Amino acid sequence: MTLSNSNPRLYVEGSLVLGGGLTLSPPQAHYLCHVMRLKAGDRVALFNGRDGEWSAVLENAGKKTCDVRVEHQFRDQTEDPGPWLAFAPVKKTRTDFIVEKATELGASRLCPVFTRHTNSARINSGRMAAHVIEAAEQCRRLSVPEIAQPQTLDELLADWPNDRRLFVLDESGAGRPIAEALAELRPGRECGFLSGPEGGFGPEELDALRKLEFVTNLDLGPRILRAETAALAALACWQAVVGNK
Amino acid sequence: MTLSNSNPRLYVEGSLVLGGGLTLSPPQAHYLCHVMRLKAGDRVALFNGRDGEWSAVLENAGKKTCDVRVEHQFRDQTEDPGPWLAFAPVKKTRTDFIVEKATELGASRLCPVFTRHTNSARINSGRMAAHVIEAAEQCRRLSVPEIAQPQTLDELLADWPNDRRLFVLDESGAGRPIAEALAELRPGRECGFLSGPEGGFGPEELDALRKLEFVTNLDLGPRILRAETAALAALACWQAVVGNK
Repeated sequence: MTLSNSNPRLYVEGSLVLGGGLTLSPPQAHYLCHVMRLKAGDRVALFNGRDGEWSAVLENAGKKTCDVRVEHQFRDQTEDPGPWLAFAPVKKTRTDFIVEKATELGASRLCPVFTRHTNSARINSGRMAAHVIEAAEQCRRLSVPEIAQPQTLDELLADWPNDRRLFVLDESGAGRPIAEALAELRPGRECGFLSGPEGGFGPEELDALRKLEFVTNLDLGPRILRAETAALAALACWQAVVGNK
Repeated sequence: MTLSNSNPRLYVEGSLVLGGGLTLSPPQAHYLCHVMRLKAGDRVALFNGRDGEWSAVLENAGKKTCDVRVEHQFRDQTEDPGPWLAFAPVKKTRTDFIVEKATELGASRLCPVFTRHTNSARINSGRMAAHVIEAAEQCRRLSVPEIAQPQTLDELLADWPNDRRLFVLDESGAGRPIAEALAELRPGRECGFLSGPEGGFGPEELDALRKLEFVTNLDLGPRILRAETAALAALACWQAVVGNK
């Protein structure tokens, strides 16, 4: 009944309870039975973001359907205190990259945001949802980041909870060093990051952000980082400085 | 004579001295004159990793050649204390990603290394060289990371300078928290990171690494990061914890 890292690991929507049966989705059945060549009696790991992680045994491995029986819980669900990431969408593969890496690095919510210099007018939410699930399966997270409805920067700031510090990745060099600012975050205090588009934030956007009580502008070092590099670097620093506390 | 961030910025091999003339390479001439549509009298920023950063004026903008005159130094060359990154090559686009992001995040030397589970048998050094130059131009670095000859892990360790701490990105969870280990690095002390392939290090590789005096194994958090994510997260933490000192 034990699973190894080589067992496939899938996100499901249904509840995971001892002895419960689940019918996997057709793409999941295809993946398990055709790509991975699993057979009845083989085991997979399942999680749904609510009930922890379970092993399940394949009861049948058909051409288009696959039923499993949930048999053993091996990790409890834990709280997910990961930061939010609000980001201006950039070019397609670089946005894919932000979404995949933010999931690996523990972001709990992804908020696409349109800023003044954002060039991408469309958000493919279905593509983002598929990528966060795939990344969560791969990195052994117990949860999948929530994907927020796209908003303008004004809407994002109007809705932002005042008790969640918003760290703005400020390429102007005027922000505070990231390690110092993160180290001052009180234990248990939640936060989020905001990364801009390829062309950066407008000066008037940075001015408006600086005036907000819940905002801290951050400096990520002397080089000009691409938008997706900045987002990822900030999340990696969060994990190193705050996440292990 | 002042340049803005919108002026093209190019890496050149020749020396940069006041009043000196340079003939740019045909691809650079094409980029400036056809893609960016610059004309004689327009300005570019140039760096070569030795002489700082200079503005130069286009003396002619031909179909296949472009001559410039170096006219004003606006940044001095500085020492580049960035960490080395030794990495097992992974799939093509993910290796491209490591190379681009490591350059942005300040690595001073990239060392491709073949470990037991490394699947990529070939290293395209020309492709890597082009990517580090493009990334250095874009992120406004004054230097381009050196690309080492590919080595086996044994060769890399035999050649590694004993006074440069080697931080191994250890996915087994047995390493030290990265922020803590980096904070103990003495000011001015140089270091490097070693990231494994998709399948991770072999247990015997991790055992051998742990026995070396100059090695510290690091833990990057509770999730299983992809190889390229781990490399980038480590470099981002270095910049945040060590790089701004």
